Amino acid sequence: MIAYLDYNATAPLRPEALDAMTRAVAEPGNASSVHAAGRRARRLVEEAREKVAALAAVDPRWVIFTSGGTEANNLALGGLAAGPRLVSATEHDSVLQAAPQAERLAVRPDGQIDLDALEEALRGQPAGALVSVMLANNETGVLQPMEAVVERAKAAGALVHCDAVQAAGKLPLDMVRLGVDCMTLSSHKLGGPPGVGALLCRDNLPLTPLLQGGGQERQRRPGTENLPGIAGFGAAAEAALRDLPQVGSIAGLRDSLETGAQTIAPEVRVFGAESARLANTSCLALAGMAAETQIMALDLAGVAVSAGAACSSGKVRPSHVLTAMGASAGEAASAIRVSLGWRSSTDDVDRFLAAWGDLYRRSQAA
Amino acid sequence: MIAYLDYNATAPLRPEALDAMTRAVAEPGNASSVHAAGRRARRLVEEAREKVAALAAVDPRWVIFTSGGTEANNLALGGLAAGPRLVSATEHDSVLQAAPQAERLAVRPDGQIDLDALEEALRGQPAGALVSVMLANNETGVLQPMEAVVERAKAAGALVHCDAVQAAGKLPLDMVRLGVDCMTLSSHKLGGPPGVGALLCRDNLPLTPLLQGGGQERQRRPGTENLPGIAGFGAAAEAALRDLPQVGSIAGLRDSLETGAQTIAPEVRVFGAESARLANTSCLALAGMAAETQIMALDLAGVAVSAGAACSSGKVRPSHVLTAMGASAGEAASAIRVSLGWRSSTDDVDRFLAAWGDLYRRSQAA
Repeated sequence: MIAYLDYNATAPLRPEALDAMTRAVAEPGNASSVHAAGRRARRLVEEAREKVAALAAVDPRWVIFTSGGTEANNLALGGLAAGPRLVSATEHDSVLQAAPQAERLAVRPDGQIDLDALEEALRGQPAGALVSVMLANNETGVLQPMEAVVERAKAAGALVHCDAVQAAGKLPLDMVRLGVDCMTLSSHKLGGPPGVGALLCRDNLPLTPLLQGGGQERQRRPGTENLPGIAGFGAAAEAALRDLPQVGSIAGLRDSLETGAQTIAPEVRVFGAESARLANTSCLALAGMAAETQIMALDLAGVAVSAGAACSSGKVRPSHVLTAMGASAGEAASAIRVSLGWRSSTDDVDRFLAAWGDLYRRSQAA
Repeated sequence: MIAYLDYNATAPLRPEALDAMTRAVAEPGNASSVHAAGRRARRLVEEAREKVAALAAVDPRWVIFTSGGTEANNLALGGLAAGPRLVSATEHDSVLQAAPQAERLAVRPDGQIDLDALEEALRGQPAGALVSVMLANNETGVLQPMEAVVERAKAAGALVHCDAVQAAGKLPLDMVRLGVDCMTLSSHKLGGPPGVGALLCRDNLPLTPLLQGGGQERQRRPGTENLPGIAGFGAAAEAALRDLPQVGSIAGLRDSLETGAQTIAPEVRVFGAESARLANTSCLALAGMAAETQIMALDLAGVAVSAGAACSSGKVRPSHVLTAMGASAGEAASAIRVSLGWRSSTDDVDRFLAAWGDLYRRSQAA
């Protein structure tokens, strides 16, 4: 059994999600078929929709199921509003690359968006601008001040999209209170299966679909519904909402991991530590020790962590997130991400610290 | 247990697919992560890629996993070639609506594309045209003469996309021999889970991605890989290939169903019967009896069939497929689709005929 500390890449499937998936595939049924088998499939989809909606405290009709966070982000950036796009510099690639012409909003060294710069950028924008700011960063866990972002965007008549992929299930989520117009969720980041996500879209907000075809998802996302994926997502969302009170103990594990790392190597830097952060994420940089070296040594010791986002198929590049926070290329190249979740234990933290401590001491002796 | 005769809407999950999905979710792992857990996930994805490729006898590197047939069709129609699009009039909505400006190619009353009309339409097209013709129709099972289509398209310098969603697993498939440039497959139509499909794309064919984000699928389809879906798809493809010799017995069931229906109601029309057809599909029209009435009566008797495509969320509209074959609105509105597959039995056929015969006799008595 490995010490899995890479929840921000993908979380282990929750047993509730596995149960729901197993039940969903037990009988055939296309959720768009009118016969009894189809209606049973439809009911499972709608039950899951309610559970996903509950995680963000929204009306189930706001939920548009997609094939994942990437598609949901692409749908939002491509399909909402007709005006210019403004995105924070630390967004996920599925936001940045979906809006290559977007104005990039600077972040401060603590990782939070520069609200003055946002206000400045919004000044003089034509109507129909769209601001996209993530709730929590995937690499550092840094939380963005969404209410302040929304306030400034609304004052300028802009819509707001919020990528909440990493935040969902790790903190209480209330889309209406946040005031955003639409929000991206991903199933596999909160213990559901991969291959399914959602764009939550405020009622009556015009949205141009990304895919063309059938009338599924109220004409907003065609394609046969991913029944096991959606059922698993719903069950995971329900379990994540139930488990929110346990986030404190995950924060405790994370803090003991950071304290332990700083005891081993006082020069270690924790990116985003001066910000409000997710309870589960730690981005540790040890100048002079390449992230790849750390990851491989930890991997050999049975500890799974990553360097930044997992989405680049094995290539370790200097992180655009850390660079935007003012890190040097060297600092960024020495940063690893440790991320915890629903099944993490003190044993996982101990194994990380033992392996990382060994590596550090070997490097000091060399 | 219902008599499920709606395989063209979705097939029951094959046990091999369920096993593969269960194994795939047993351990965490993002297939793009570099650690051991990620590498194990990657291996499962690549094993599945080989199995899906084998179903169409292509190089595994040609396989681009997508969220399903709809996305694959959208990717092909949106991302291949820069020239005009020509599509047959009986394509699936995910082709027709992805290329709303496309020239619609007429079909003959037997459902097959009019090759003279195709040749005529290709004449004088600028370079870079894309012809999209399905291998087998979802509503009638009618097979298109793909080699003849390809021959004419190639002579005109056009690329060919082939939607093989309904054909795959129901007849031997050899993409290279067919000569098409790219081909769409869907997992759930052949006994894999929904929410996953593939575009098979001839090597080095330039393709503009539909989604933007990470580098997955060799830069052609970003987003965290749908590991359980892909694993299930692979296992289903392998099982479908193994089961191809059983297609003859499915044809036997289908033929006995049609013979039985004609014995009950000699005036029943079988759409596409004069064409080469899939072994599993029967499109039956009984003038004067609405498809909805038939479907509901059969549903009450525990028999699941459909009227045309399932993709329109319960709405029964006159089928564009049957209309293109020259059916009147009345004929089209009285057509039901009965489709069989890997778990179908004589009992299913008997139950269909009993329920349909009852309905027919009641309508005659009324």
